[in-house]
Amino acid sequence: MRRPVHVSFAFGSSGEWIVDSIRSVVGAGLPSASRLSIHEGLDCDVGDADWWLRGVTSHAHYATRKELHLLAARQEGLGRAEATRAALIPIRKTEIWWTLGQDQRRAIMEDQSRHISLGLEHLPDVARRVHHCRELAEPFDFLTWFEYPSSYSDRFEELVRILRRTPEWRHVDREIDIRLTRA
Amino acid sequence: MRRPVHVSFAFGSSGEWIVDSIRSVVGAGLPSASRLSIHEGLDCDVGDADWWLRGVTSHAHYATRKELHLLAARQEGLGRAEATRAALIPIRKTEIWWTLGQDQRRAIMEDQSRHISLGLEHLPDVARRVHHCRELAEPFDFLTWFEYPSSYSDRFEELVRILRRTPEWRHVDREIDIRLTRA
Repeated sequence: MRRPVHVSFAFGSSGEWIVDSIRSVVGAGLPSASRLSIHEGLDCDVGDADWWLRGVTSHAHYATRKELHLLAARQEGLGRAEATRAALIPIRKTEIWWTLGQDQRRAIMEDQSRHISLGLEHLPDVARRVHHCRELAEPFDFLTWFEYPSSYSDRFEELVRILRRTPEWRHVDREIDIRLTRA
Repeated sequence: MRRPVHVSFAFGSSGEWIVDSIRSVVGAGLPSASRLSIHEGLDCDVGDADWWLRGVTSHAHYATRKELHLLAARQEGLGRAEATRAALIPIRKTEIWWTLGQDQRRAIMEDQSRHISLGLEHLPDVARRVHHCRELAEPFDFLTWFEYPSSYSDRFEELVRILRRTPEWRHVDREIDIRLTRA
């Protein structure tokens, strides 16, 4: 486990990813942009970006030892040449969600919604990194970044469609779906 | 559950708390200071402080629904007139701790160390607030702030002595114990 990495997703007219679409799934949307550049580091310079979202990587908040072993055995890193498609999905959860006990959140997330198990089914094709931002006074609670090959696009749509129908998603009160192609 | 609150503990020559002692329990110490002032808010002005520690409140990371109900029923808020003594205990946990699964960390913390149960035994006399700082790129992982009446001092010593002997504390690789009296 590395120390947490601070990441800024900077939207504007330059960057290594072409923005294909920015769509609100629930709640207020975000401005349009043509490109995204990703910067690592605290207080990094976001250059000439028009707007940005910030988050920080963290330790496992729900996954058990057994699940971490399964994830580690199957997952691929970011930056694979064949992973030319990406999605950035900022979500915010309800205030009620954050008042629940750890056991209640785990039960909703995995026992009822199979969030970790569903993710495992899409490894190694989909690589992802979760960024936390609730404690950074940002407008979202999580920014999840996914990279996958173009040939996997239909399967990726299936994953997000299924997740959005789970009991866990009843606790999501803002969600934006940003799709991108490597420039 | 309120939104997370950013808190700065600013040490120097002014502030509402007199610093009685700053003692390293394990690892590198911290500079001396005569006073502490506490500031809430992101990017707050720490005035003429010599040095400071920052953290942010968060949701329950380990407590179950049942434990949260017990805590809510018994705990008192900060700022009670009779709570003239305070302790600020910054700790950092090992890198290995942060690679463990959620189930493993919960087992060490509560099943083996009774951290939550021990804390409950000292309510309502001891009021406390936990601040997280691992994701803020700070030198510690947690800053825990305790307030208690002078008459409870011996019992408070007992609490910290017992906690430091638990299996959980084998994963603490830096700890400072700062004691204070309300000015």
